[in-house]
Amino acid sequence: MPSSPTPDPTFAHRTADATLTVLGPDGAPLRDADVVVAQTRHAFGLGNIGFEFIPLANDELSDDGAPAGGRPALGEAEGTRLSRGQAQHLADLWLDVFNTATLPFYWGRFEPVRGRPDTARLRRTAEWFAERGVALKGHPLMWHTVQPDWLLDLPTDEVERLQRERIRREVGDFSGLIDTWDAINEVVIMPVFENGANGITPLARERGRIATIRLAFEEARATNPSATLLLNDFDMSTAYECLIEGVLEAGIQVDVLGLQSHMHQGYWGEEKTLAILDRFSRYGLPIHFTETTLLSGHLMPPELEDLNDYQIPHWPSTPDGEARQADEVERHYRTLASHPSVQGVTYWGLSDGDMWLGAPGGLVRADGTPKPSYDALRRLVKDEWWLAPTALRTDAQGRVGVGGWLGDYEVRADGRAAAFTLEAGAAPEVTLG
Amino acid sequence: MPSSPTPDPTFAHRTADATLTVLGPDGAPLRDADVVVAQTRHAFGLGNIGFEFIPLANDELSDDGAPAGGRPALGEAEGTRLSRGQAQHLADLWLDVFNTATLPFYWGRFEPVRGRPDTARLRRTAEWFAERGVALKGHPLMWHTVQPDWLLDLPTDEVERLQRERIRREVGDFSGLIDTWDAINEVVIMPVFENGANGITPLARERGRIATIRLAFEEARATNPSATLLLNDFDMSTAYECLIEGVLEAGIQVDVLGLQSHMHQGYWGEEKTLAILDRFSRYGLPIHFTETTLLSGHLMPPELEDLNDYQIPHWPSTPDGEARQADEVERHYRTLASHPSVQGVTYWGLSDGDMWLGAPGGLVRADGTPKPSYDALRRLVKDEWWLAPTALRTDAQGRVGVGGWLGDYEVRADGRAAAFTLEAGAAPEVTLG
Repeated sequence: MPSSPTPDPTFAHRTADATLTVLGPDGAPLRDADVVVAQTRHAFGLGNIGFEFIPLANDELSDDGAPAGGRPALGEAEGTRLSRGQAQHLADLWLDVFNTATLPFYWGRFEPVRGRPDTARLRRTAEWFAERGVALKGHPLMWHTVQPDWLLDLPTDEVERLQRERIRREVGDFSGLIDTWDAINEVVIMPVFENGANGITPLARERGRIATIRLAFEEARATNPSATLLLNDFDMSTAYECLIEGVLEAGIQVDVLGLQSHMHQGYWGEEKTLAILDRFSRYGLPIHFTETTLLSGHLMPPELEDLNDYQIPHWPSTPDGEARQADEVERHYRTLASHPSVQGVTYWGLSDGDMWLGAPGGLVRADGTPKPSYDALRRLVKDEWWLAPTALRTDAQGRVGVGGWLGDYEVRADGRAAAFTLEAGAAPEVTLG
Repeated sequence: MPSSPTPDPTFAHRTADATLTVLGPDGAPLRDADVVVAQTRHAFGLGNIGFEFIPLANDELSDDGAPAGGRPALGEAEGTRLSRGQAQHLADLWLDVFNTATLPFYWGRFEPVRGRPDTARLRRTAEWFAERGVALKGHPLMWHTVQPDWLLDLPTDEVERLQRERIRREVGDFSGLIDTWDAINEVVIMPVFENGANGITPLARERGRIATIRLAFEEARATNPSATLLLNDFDMSTAYECLIEGVLEAGIQVDVLGLQSHMHQGYWGEEKTLAILDRFSRYGLPIHFTETTLLSGHLMPPELEDLNDYQIPHWPSTPDGEARQADEVERHYRTLASHPSVQGVTYWGLSDGDMWLGAPGGLVRADGTPKPSYDALRRLVKDEWWLAPTALRTDAQGRVGVGGWLGDYEVRADGRAAAFTLEAGAAPEVTLG
């Protein structure tokens, strides 16, 4: 087993210095010329859920917020519809910071009536994000929560058959558009889950955790061999380690380990976060922080074991809470970026108007104004960790040194542009077109 | 995966009614004759540790308690030596209730000087128990605690080689005498154990839990193919479930699941105990409650995670505590016996003079007088669950009905005796000799 990578708060593993060779439209080096280089995208995955943009992407919104499409919500909240303008405003905030969208494939909402999956609307949403340069991820292909009622009381063999079919259907329907999936979610608790009847818990209990995981991975892999498939869990205890070791020993190919971090009961802090990273990075797999929440209001009581059990009518964002959240968001992202195993972080919501459990964990208030946490995160990823358009000059061979965070860049000169990718050890050459 | 067996507080699965046919020395049925039938042994494993009888078995004790043999203790306490008479008194109490002894093979005490294992003394102890009709178990072949200092700082490959050798040596040396082993102990925590430097934690971390378990089982199995090998743990959380599922999926043959129940922080109660049994019995494997402690004094604070961290100079047994312990011991044994998966229970110590952590968890006080818990357990297993010598009469075919707890019995008539075993569905025939 590999040893755990060492965190580096200077982010050396996230950055590169490269020599870019710029060729003119004629293919000759652009010698001793003024160019402007600018970053366009982070290689580091900066994700958020895209649930609340399904109505916008599907043109279901009216100018005054009344429902236009009449389709049910697929996301976290069933609440108020936004007007088209409000949704577009949120989309602008979203797109300014994030580069990866997680879309909801909760079986119970995606296919509430058997045989009528919401495929078209999700595909349109995925296309909407893809057109805006956003990478996509589907969540989740298999889980014991938010299950369709029609799965209840079916024999285990039939549940397994339907679950396998559903995985093949979604992975196939979205192949090329969504090629990253939470293949299965929260298996540590799956066979002993007692907070709601569902068809999957009996399956997982009868077959065992490893066989259940194999089922999900083998169907997804067979349908889309190039997909990136995650094992995702909220359980950061040794139980998840034991599960992972069993899965790897069983030869199931896990591409990425997903670690949730819904911190409704308080920010973990750097020490705990790094300790978790140390434990879970020793398997040599990339890590995604798949579900991150930090609150700008009061915390959930620590004694609650299932966060779903905390239901209150109104959970306000407060000025003190917003200051704390901004500090914690920045610290959390710095900690995660410092660890070489972390490929990306997905924050779990943008606006307080559409948050899981109604918690004030958004980066934007319900009225659409950014919280300090939004500004802090934006400053981090679009300023401190970002190369704004920068005037540089090529040498006699058309070469110019470029340093910055790994990712996509463009170079411009004389009204022409070309894109390149900054990778460790690369020496890109571009032709202005 | 099989479903979990259902507990039965009437113990129907522990008892049988059989028709015994008694033949005289001439081989003819003993017709219409008075016979006396008596139970001699429980099939249900009633275990205790035998650590404190090593000096007695090896004739190292003097009449006044001064050390005679001069060898170090191998058991839980390094304390006062008993006189031969005191030890014999404890042995009488032990042998009156228990039928299975766990002997200590903690590597660090068994072989404190490399190459000088305490084999002879342990073998003599095992023989001493075997001569008295007691089955034996060795504990443990691999663990991260009580390790020899000379294992520290060796390269991982060398630690693995030595660990494999040590397993082969002990299992081979005691084959035929000790054929049941805790093959490996507490693997859930093994690779992340931080409460003491040892050579095994780095090995488990580097190789992974499953490979580490495979190592222990494959060496023990290869050396003694008919051995009963346990996976043993104190962690009753989902982590142990996940570990077990990975182990079974990896094809490692575990014969028995060992569940510890050191209840220094309080009796679990029937509900928790049955819930644990329900979760761990669903793998279809027999279960041993391998390490049971219930206190007759104040409880350890609940916030302690590692019981080893609680060190106090004097931990008294109290009258109230003794009454509580007696009640809890009886309830715990009833609960365990009610579950069909439980093959046996090992209590972790007899006398308060030799208890782990110096806790008042013995069934006998330090002065050698039985506590109420001893009397309660003895009454249960040698009275309520026991067939005392009972006068019966054979019929015209020499047959007599015998009902009782599964186990060994003898029948006597006319000064002659014969042994038989009461099993479910059996119709034993014996010849008086």
